[in-house]
Amino acid sequence: MTRGRFMTFEGGEGAGKSTQVRRLVARLQAAGHEVTATREPGGSPGAEAIRDIVLKGAADRWSPVTETLLMYAARRDHIERVIRPALDRGAWVVCDRFADSTRAYQGGAGGVDPALIAALEAHILADVRPDLTLVFDLPPEVGLRRATERAGPEMRFESKGLAFHQRLRDAFAAIAAAEPDRCVVIDGTGSIDAVADAVWTAVSERLGVDG
Amino acid sequence: MTRGRFMTFEGGEGAGKSTQVRRLVARLQAAGHEVTATREPGGSPGAEAIRDIVLKGAADRWSPVTETLLMYAARRDHIERVIRPALDRGAWVVCDRFADSTRAYQGGAGGVDPALIAALEAHILADVRPDLTLVFDLPPEVGLRRATERAGPEMRFESKGLAFHQRLRDAFAAIAAAEPDRCVVIDGTGSIDAVADAVWTAVSERLGVDG
Repeated sequence: MTRGRFMTFEGGEGAGKSTQVRRLVARLQAAGHEVTATREPGGSPGAEAIRDIVLKGAADRWSPVTETLLMYAARRDHIERVIRPALDRGAWVVCDRFADSTRAYQGGAGGVDPALIAALEAHILADVRPDLTLVFDLPPEVGLRRATERAGPEMRFESKGLAFHQRLRDAFAAIAAAEPDRCVVIDGTGSIDAVADAVWTAVSERLGVDG
Repeated sequence: MTRGRFMTFEGGEGAGKSTQVRRLVARLQAAGHEVTATREPGGSPGAEAIRDIVLKGAADRWSPVTETLLMYAARRDHIERVIRPALDRGAWVVCDRFADSTRAYQGGAGGVDPALIAALEAHILADVRPDLTLVFDLPPEVGLRRATERAGPEMRFESKGLAFHQRLRDAFAAIAAAEPDRCVVIDGTGSIDAVADAVWTAVSERLGVDG
Protein backbone atom coordinates (compact mmCIF):
# COMPACT_ATOMS: atom_id res chain seq x y z
CA MET A 1 0.00 0.00 0.00
CA THR A 2 1.47 3.39 -1.01
CA ARG A 3 1.11 6.06 1.64
CA GLY A 4 -1.19 8.89 0.51
CA ARG A 5 -0.20 12.51 -0.06
CA PHE A 6 -0.85 15.33 2.37
CA MET A 7 -1.79 18.81 1.11
CA THR A 8 -2.48 21.84 3.31
CA PHE A 9 -4.14 25.15 2.47
CA GLU A 10 -2.89 28.12 4.47
CA GLY A 11 -3.38 31.90 4.60
CA GLY A 12 -5.28 34.66 6.34
CA GLU A 13 -9.03 35.18 6.73
CA GLY A 14 -11.35 35.36 3.74
CA ALA A 15 -8.84 33.94 1.26
CA GLY A 16 -11.37 31.49 -0.20
CA LYS A 17 -9.58 28.38 1.07
CA SER A 18 -12.63 26.29 1.90
CA THR A 19 -14.19 26.90 -1.53
CA GLN A 20 -10.91 25.88 -3.14
CA VAL A 21 -10.64 22.76 -0.98
CA ARG A 22 -13.99 21.61 -2.40
CA ARG A 23 -12.89 22.33 -5.98
CA LEU A 24 -9.59 20.48 -5.56
CA VAL A 25 -11.24 17.49 -3.88
CA ALA A 26 -13.69 17.11 -6.77
CA ARG A 27 -10.86 17.23 -9.29
CA LEU A 28 -8.68 14.73 -7.39
CA GLN A 29 -11.64 12.36 -7.05
CA ALA A 30 -12.29 12.67 -10.78
CA ALA A 31 -8.64 11.65 -11.27
CA GLY A 32 -9.36 8.45 -9.33
CA HIS A 33 -7.95 9.20 -5.87
CA GLU A 34 -9.58 8.49 -2.53
CA VAL A 35 -9.62 11.95 -0.91
CA THR A 36 -10.14 12.99 2.70
CA ALA A 37 -11.08 16.67 3.02
CA THR A 38 -10.69 18.09 6.50
CA ARG A 39 -9.91 21.29 8.39
CA GLU A 40 -8.24 22.76 11.44
CA PRO A 41 -8.79 23.58 14.17
CA GLY A 42 -11.09 20.56 14.26
CA GLY A 43 -11.48 17.66 11.86
CA SER A 44 -12.17 14.99 14.52
CA PRO A 45 -14.85 14.95 17.25
CA GLY A 46 -12.34 15.81 20.00
CA ALA A 47 -10.62 18.51 17.96
CA GLU A 48 -13.99 20.06 17.07
CA ALA A 49 -14.76 20.31 20.81
CA ILE A 50 -11.48 22.20 21.24
CA ARG A 51 -12.29 24.39 18.21
CA ASP A 52 -15.52 25.32 19.91
CA ILE A 53 -13.70 26.91 22.85
CA VAL A 54 -10.74 28.38 20.95
CA LEU A 55 -12.57 30.30 18.20
CA LYS A 56 -15.42 31.79 20.22
CA GLY A 57 -15.52 34.55 22.82
CA ALA A 58 -13.52 37.75 23.31
CA ALA A 59 -10.32 38.33 21.31
CA ASP A 60 -8.29 38.15 24.56
CA ARG A 61 -10.06 35.07 25.95
CA TRP A 62 -6.81 33.08 25.52
CA SER A 63 -3.22 34.30 25.42
CA PRO A 64 -1.23 33.36 22.29
CA VAL A 65 0.74 30.75 24.30
CA THR A 66 -2.44 29.08 25.56
CA GLU A 67 -3.87 29.18 22.03
CA THR A 68 -0.73 27.43 20.76
CA LEU A 69 -1.24 24.56 23.23
CA LEU A 70 -4.96 24.27 22.42
CA MET A 71 -4.23 24.25 18.68
CA TYR A 72 -1.64 21.50 19.16
CA ALA A 73 -3.97 19.45 21.36
CA ALA A 74 -6.60 19.63 18.61
CA ARG A 75 -3.96 18.91 15.94
CA ARG A 76 -2.69 15.82 17.75
CA ASP A 77 -6.19 14.37 18.05
CA HIS A 78 -6.87 15.16 14.38
CA ILE A 79 -3.59 13.49 13.30
CA GLU A 80 -4.19 10.38 15.41
CA ARG A 81 -7.83 9.83 14.50
CA VAL A 82 -8.13 11.16 10.93
CA ILE A 83 -4.98 12.26 9.06
CA ARG A 84 -2.58 9.40 9.82
CA PRO A 85 -5.18 6.62 9.28
CA ALA A 86 -6.17 8.19 5.94
CA LEU A 87 -2.56 8.52 4.74
CA ASP A 88 -1.81 4.96 5.89
CA ARG A 89 -4.63 3.54 3.77
CA GLY A 90 -3.39 5.49 0.73
CA ALA A 91 -5.89 8.35 0.73
CA TRP A 92 -4.93 11.87 -0.31
CA VAL A 93 -5.63 14.34 2.48
CA VAL A 94 -6.53 17.99 1.81
CA CYS A 95 -6.56 20.03 5.01
CA ASP A 96 -7.82 23.62 5.38
CA ARG A 97 -5.13 25.02 7.79
CA PHE A 98 -2.44 23.03 9.60
CA ALA A 99 0.81 23.68 11.46
CA ASP A 100 1.76 26.79 9.46
CA SER A 101 -1.32 28.54 10.87
CA THR A 102 0.14 28.16 14.37
CA ARG A 103 3.48 29.52 13.16
CA ALA A 104 1.72 32.52 11.61
CA TYR A 105 -1.22 33.31 13.96
CA GLN A 106 0.34 32.50 17.33
CA GLY A 107 4.01 32.88 16.32
CA GLY A 108 4.54 35.64 13.75
CA ALA A 109 1.41 37.66 14.54
CA GLY A 110 0.94 36.65 18.19
CA GLY A 111 4.52 36.82 19.43
CA VAL A 112 4.90 33.24 20.75
CA ASP A 113 8.53 32.08 21.05
CA PRO A 114 9.41 30.16 17.87
CA ALA A 115 11.34 27.68 20.03
CA LEU A 116 8.09 26.55 21.70
CA ILE A 117 6.43 26.08 18.32
CA ALA A 118 9.46 24.18 16.97
CA ALA A 119 9.44 21.87 20.00
CA LEU A 120 5.73 21.15 19.49
CA GLU A 121 6.26 20.43 15.78
CA ALA A 122 9.07 18.01 16.60
CA HIS A 123 7.17 16.11 19.31
CA ILE A 124 3.57 16.30 18.06
CA LEU A 125 3.70 16.19 14.26
CA ALA A 126 6.37 13.48 14.15
CA ASP A 127 6.32 12.21 10.54
CA VAL A 128 3.00 13.80 9.56
CA ARG A 129 4.26 16.73 7.47
CA PRO A 130 2.62 18.21 4.37
CA ASP A 131 3.93 17.14 0.98
CA LEU A 132 2.57 20.38 -0.48
CA THR A 133 1.31 23.59 1.11
CA LEU A 134 -0.63 26.22 -0.85
CA VAL A 135 -0.31 29.65 0.77
CA PHE A 136 -3.24 31.85 -0.24
CA ASP A 137 -2.23 35.49 -0.30
CA LEU A 138 -4.39 38.59 -0.47
CA PRO A 139 -4.46 42.03 1.18
CA PRO A 140 -5.89 41.74 4.71
CA GLU A 141 -8.40 44.55 4.04
CA VAL A 142 -9.94 42.41 1.29
CA GLY A 143 -9.86 39.18 3.29
CA LEU A 144 -11.34 40.73 6.42
CA ARG A 145 -14.16 42.31 4.42
CA ARG A 146 -15.03 38.90 2.93
CA ALA A 147 -14.73 37.16 6.32
CA THR A 148 -16.95 39.72 8.03
CA GLU A 149 -19.68 39.22 5.44
CA ARG A 150 -19.98 35.55 6.47
CA ALA A 151 -19.71 36.41 10.19
CA GLY A 152 -20.83 33.81 12.73
CA PRO A 153 -19.87 33.10 16.34
CA GLU A 154 -16.27 32.06 15.47
CA MET A 155 -14.81 35.56 15.16
CA ARG A 156 -12.02 35.74 17.77
CA PHE A 157 -9.24 36.12 15.20
CA GLU A 158 -11.19 38.28 12.75
CA SER A 159 -11.70 40.75 15.63
CA LYS A 160 -7.99 41.21 16.31
CA GLY A 161 -7.53 44.26 14.08
CA LEU A 162 -5.74 45.14 10.86
CA ALA A 163 -2.20 45.34 12.30
CA PHE A 164 -2.49 41.73 13.51
CA HIS A 165 -3.67 40.62 10.08
CA GLN A 166 -0.84 42.46 8.32
CA ARG A 167 1.69 40.62 10.56
CA LEU A 168 -0.14 37.42 9.71
CA ARG A 169 0.25 38.00 5.96
CA ASP A 170 3.95 38.73 6.43
CA ALA A 171 4.38 35.55 8.50
CA PHE A 172 2.80 33.35 5.84
CA ALA A 173 4.95 35.01 3.15
CA ALA A 174 8.06 34.27 5.24
CA ILE A 175 7.10 30.59 5.62
CA ALA A 176 6.60 30.24 1.86
CA ALA A 177 9.92 31.96 1.14
CA ALA A 178 11.79 29.76 3.65
CA GLU A 179 10.41 26.46 2.33
CA PRO A 180 9.98 26.79 -1.43
CA ASP A 181 10.17 23.03 -1.99
CA ARG A 182 7.03 22.53 0.10
CA CYS A 183 5.11 25.78 -0.45
CA VAL A 184 3.45 27.50 -3.42
CA VAL A 185 1.95 30.99 -3.05
CA ILE A 186 -1.49 31.33 -4.64
CA ASP A 187 -2.83 34.80 -5.48
CA GLY A 188 -6.20 34.86 -3.70
CA THR A 189 -7.51 38.02 -5.38
CA GLY A 190 -8.61 36.37 -8.64
CA SER A 191 -11.95 34.81 -9.56
CA ILE A 192 -12.85 31.42 -8.06
CA ASP A 193 -12.13 29.76 -11.40
CA ALA A 194 -8.80 31.52 -11.81
CA VAL A 195 -7.69 30.54 -8.30
CA ALA A 196 -8.86 26.95 -8.87
CA ASP A 197 -6.74 26.80 -12.02
CA ALA A 198 -3.69 28.05 -10.10
CA VAL A 199 -4.31 25.43 -7.38
CA TRP A 200 -4.59 22.65 -9.93
CA THR A 201 -1.42 23.74 -11.74
CA ALA A 202 0.49 23.65 -8.44
CA VAL A 203 -0.88 20.25 -7.39
CA SER A 204 -0.37 18.59 -10.76
CA GLU A 205 3.15 19.98 -11.20
CA ARG A 206 4.35 19.31 -7.65
CA LEU A 207 2.66 15.97 -7.00
CA GLY A 208 2.52 14.64 -10.56
CA VAL A 209 -1.26 14.20 -10.89
CA ASP A 210 -2.99 13.89 -14.23
CA GLY A 211 -6.68 14.67 -14.57
CA MET B 1 6.31 43.40 48.25
CA THR B 2 7.54 39.87 49.02
CA ARG B 3 6.48 37.29 46.51
CA GLY B 4 4.09 34.72 48.04
CA ARG B 5 4.77 31.01 48.43
CA PHE B 6 3.43 28.30 46.15
CA MET B 7 2.33 24.93 47.57
CA THR B 8 0.97 22.02 45.53
CA PHE B 9 -0.90 18.90 46.66
CA GLU B 10 -0.31 15.82 44.51
CA GLY B 11 -1.21 12.13 44.49
CA GLY B 12 -3.67 9.61 43.09
CA GLU B 13 -7.46 9.50 43.31
CA GLY B 14 -9.27 9.55 46.65
CA ALA B 15 -6.25 10.67 48.67
CA GLY B 16 -8.23 13.35 50.50
CA LYS B 17 -6.34 16.26 48.95
CA SER B 18 -9.25 18.68 48.60
CA THR B 19 -10.29 18.21 52.25
CA GLN B 20 -6.70 18.84 53.29
CA VAL B 21 -6.43 21.95 51.10
CA ARG B 22 -9.36 23.44 53.03
CA ARG B 23 -7.79 22.57 56.39
CA LEU B 24 -4.41 24.06 55.42
CA VAL B 25 -5.99 27.23 54.02
CA ALA B 26 -7.87 27.84 57.27
CA ARG B 27 -4.71 27.39 59.29
CA LEU B 28 -2.60 29.67 57.04
CA GLN B 29 -5.30 32.35 57.17
CA ALA B 30 -5.36 32.08 60.97
CA ALA B 31 -1.61 32.68 60.85
CA GLY B 32 -2.29 35.96 59.02
CA HIS B 33 -1.54 35.08 55.39
CA GLU B 34 -3.60 35.99 52.35
CA VAL B 35 -4.28 32.59 50.78
CA THR B 36 -5.49 31.64 47.30
CA ALA B 37 -6.86 28.08 47.17
CA THR B 38 -7.18 26.67 43.68
CA ARG B 39 -7.08 23.44 41.71
CA GLU B 40 -6.08 21.80 38.44
CA PRO B 41 -7.14 21.08 35.85
CA GLY B 42 -9.10 24.33 36.11
CA GLY B 43 -8.79 27.24 38.50
CA SER B 44 -9.58 29.99 35.97
CA PRO B 45 -12.65 30.36 33.71
CA GLY B 46 -10.73 29.27 30.60
CA ALA B 47 -9.01 26.37 32.35
CA GLU B 48 -12.34 25.18 33.79
CA ALA B 49 -13.74 25.07 30.23
CA ILE B 50 -10.80 22.83 29.28
CA ARG B 51 -11.33 20.71 32.43
CA ASP B 52 -14.87 20.16 31.28
CA ILE B 53 -13.73 18.40 28.09
CA VAL B 54 -10.69 16.60 29.52
CA LEU B 55 -12.27 14.86 32.54
CA LYS B 56 -15.54 13.73 31.00
CA GLY B 57 -16.36 11.00 28.51
CA ALA B 58 -14.82 7.61 27.73
CA ALA B 59 -11.43 6.66 29.16
CA ASP B 60 -9.95 6.66 25.63
CA ARG B 61 -11.57 9.93 24.53
CA TRP B 62 -8.10 11.52 24.40
CA SER B 63 -4.69 9.93 23.93
CA PRO B 64 -2.13 10.62 26.68
CA VAL B 65 -0.23 13.02 24.38
CA THR B 66 -3.37 15.04 23.61
CA GLU B 67 -4.21 15.07 27.34
CA THR B 68 -0.74 16.44 28.06
CA LEU B 69 -1.32 19.37 25.69
CA LEU B 70 -4.80 20.06 27.07
CA MET B 71 -3.50 19.98 30.65
CA TYR B 72 -0.72 22.42 29.75
CA ALA B 73 -3.14 24.73 27.93
CA ALA B 74 -5.30 24.81 31.07
CA ARG B 75 -2.21 25.23 33.27
CA ARG B 76 -0.90 28.17 31.25
CA ASP B 77 -4.23 30.00 31.51
CA HIS B 78 -4.38 29.25 35.25
CA ILE B 79 -0.83 30.53 35.77
CA GLU B 80 -1.40 33.71 33.77
CA ARG B 81 -4.76 34.64 35.25
CA VAL B 82 -4.64 33.33 38.84
CA ILE B 83 -1.38 31.88 40.19
CA ARG B 84 1.17 34.45 39.04
CA PRO B 85 -0.98 37.49 39.95
CA ALA B 86 -1.60 36.00 43.43
CA LEU B 87 2.10 35.28 44.05
CA ASP B 88 3.04 38.75 42.76
CA ARG B 89 0.77 40.44 45.29
CA GLY B 90 2.27 38.34 48.11
CA ALA B 91 -0.50 35.77 48.54
CA TRP B 92 0.23 32.15 49.42
CA VAL B 93 -1.18 29.81 46.81
CA VAL B 94 -2.35 26.27 47.64
CA CYS B 95 -3.11 24.28 44.49
CA ASP B 96 -4.80 20.85 44.36
CA ARG B 97 -2.71 19.20 41.57
CA PHE B 98 -0.15 20.89 39.33
CA ALA B 99 2.69 19.92 36.96
CA ASP B 100 3.59 16.70 38.82
CA SER B 101 0.16 15.30 37.93
CA THR B 102 1.06 15.57 34.23
CA ARG B 103 4.39 13.83 34.90
CA ALA B 104 2.57 11.03 36.75
CA TYR B 105 -0.77 10.59 34.90
CA GLN B 106 0.33 11.26 31.31
CA GLY B 107 4.04 10.46 31.74
CA GLY B 108 4.66 7.65 34.21
CA ALA B 109 1.25 5.99 33.96
CA GLY B 110 0.31 7.08 30.42
CA GLY B 111 3.61 6.53 28.62
CA VAL B 112 4.16 10.05 27.22
CA ASP B 113 7.80 10.82 26.33
CA PRO B 114 9.37 12.61 29.32
CA ALA B 115 11.20 14.89 26.85
CA LEU B 116 7.87 16.38 25.71
CA ILE B 117 6.82 17.00 29.32
CA ALA B 118 10.21 18.54 30.15
CA ALA B 119 9.96 20.86 27.14
CA LEU B 120 6.49 22.00 28.23
CA GLU B 121 7.67 22.59 31.81
CA ALA B 122 10.58 24.71 30.52
CA HIS B 123 8.48 26.83 28.14
CA ILE B 124 5.14 27.02 29.94
CA LEU B 125 5.87 27.07 33.68
CA ALA B 126 8.82 29.47 33.33
CA ASP B 127 9.49 30.70 36.90
CA VAL B 128 6.21 29.47 38.43
CA ARG B 129 7.46 26.41 40.31
CA PRO B 130 6.20 25.08 43.65
CA ASP B 131 8.14 25.98 46.78
CA LEU B 132 6.69 22.89 48.46
CA THR B 133 4.85 19.84 47.11
CA LEU B 134 2.97 17.42 49.38
CA VAL B 135 2.65 13.99 47.75
CA PHE B 136 -0.31 12.09 49.23
CA ASP B 137 0.30 8.38 49.15
CA LEU B 138 -2.12 5.52 49.69
CA PRO B 139 -2.83 2.13 48.10
CA PRO B 140 -4.77 2.60 44.85
CA GLU B 141 -7.45 0.08 45.94
CA VAL B 142 -8.25 2.35 48.89
CA GLY B 143 -8.15 5.56 46.87
CA LEU B 144 -10.29 4.24 44.05
CA ARG B 145 -12.90 2.95 46.50
CA ARG B 146 -13.14 6.42 48.07
CA ALA B 147 -13.21 8.14 44.66
CA THR B 148 -15.94 5.87 43.35
CA GLU B 149 -18.13 6.65 46.36
CA ARG B 150 -18.18 10.35 45.38
CA ALA B 151 -18.62 9.49 41.67
CA GLY B 152 -19.85 12.23 39.32
CA PRO B 153 -19.41 12.88 35.59
CA GLU B 154 -15.62 13.51 35.86
CA MET B 155 -14.52 9.86 35.97
CA ARG B 156 -12.24 9.40 32.93
CA PHE B 157 -9.15 8.69 35.01
CA GLU B 158 -10.89 6.72 37.75
CA SER B 159 -12.13 4.36 35.04
CA LYS B 160 -8.65 3.49 33.75
CA GLY B 161 -8.18 0.38 35.90
CA LEU B 162 -6.00 -0.72 38.78
CA ALA B 163 -2.77 -1.29 36.79
CA PHE B 164 -2.87 2.34 35.62
CA HIS B 165 -3.35 3.53 39.19
CA GLN B 166 -0.47 1.39 40.47
CA ARG B 167 1.84 2.96 37.85
CA LEU B 168 0.53 6.34 38.97
CA ARG B 169 1.45 5.67 42.59
CA ASP B 170 4.93 4.55 41.54
CA ALA B 171 5.37 7.68 39.40
CA PHE B 172 4.48 10.02 42.28
CA ALA B 173 6.85 8.12 44.59
CA ALA B 174 9.64 8.54 42.03
CA ILE B 175 9.04 12.30 41.79
CA ALA B 176 9.20 12.66 45.57
CA ALA B 177 12.37 10.57 45.75
CA ALA B 178 14.04 12.57 42.96
CA GLU B 179 13.26 16.01 44.45
CA PRO B 180 13.41 15.70 48.24
CA ASP B 181 14.09 19.42 48.74
CA ARG B 182 10.74 20.28 47.19
CA CYS B 183 8.59 17.23 48.06
CA VAL B 184 7.25 15.67 51.27
CA VAL B 185 5.36 12.37 51.17
CA ILE B 186 2.18 12.39 53.29
CA ASP B 187 0.63 9.08 54.38
CA GLY B 188 -2.97 9.39 53.17
CA THR B 189 -4.31 6.39 55.05
CA GLY B 190 -4.69 8.12 58.44
CA SER B 191 -7.65 10.03 59.87
CA ILE B 192 -8.40 13.51 58.51
CA ASP B 193 -6.98 15.04 61.69
CA ALA B 194 -3.82 12.92 61.56
CA VAL B 195 -3.20 13.83 57.91
CA ALA B 196 -3.88 17.51 58.64
CA ASP B 197 -1.26 17.41 61.39
CA ALA B 198 1.28 15.84 59.01
CA VAL B 199 0.52 18.54 56.43
CA TRP B 200 0.95 21.30 58.95
CA THR B 201 4.23 19.86 60.22
CA ALA B 202 5.58 19.77 56.67
CA VAL B 203 4.43 23.32 55.84
CA SER B 204 5.66 24.87 59.06
CA GLU B 205 9.04 23.11 58.92
CA ARG B 206 9.70 23.67 55.23
CA LEU B 207 8.32 27.18 54.85
CA GLY B 208 8.88 28.47 58.35
CA VAL B 209 5.29 29.33 59.30
CA ASP B 210 4.17 29.79 62.89
CA GLY B 211 0.51 29.41 63.82
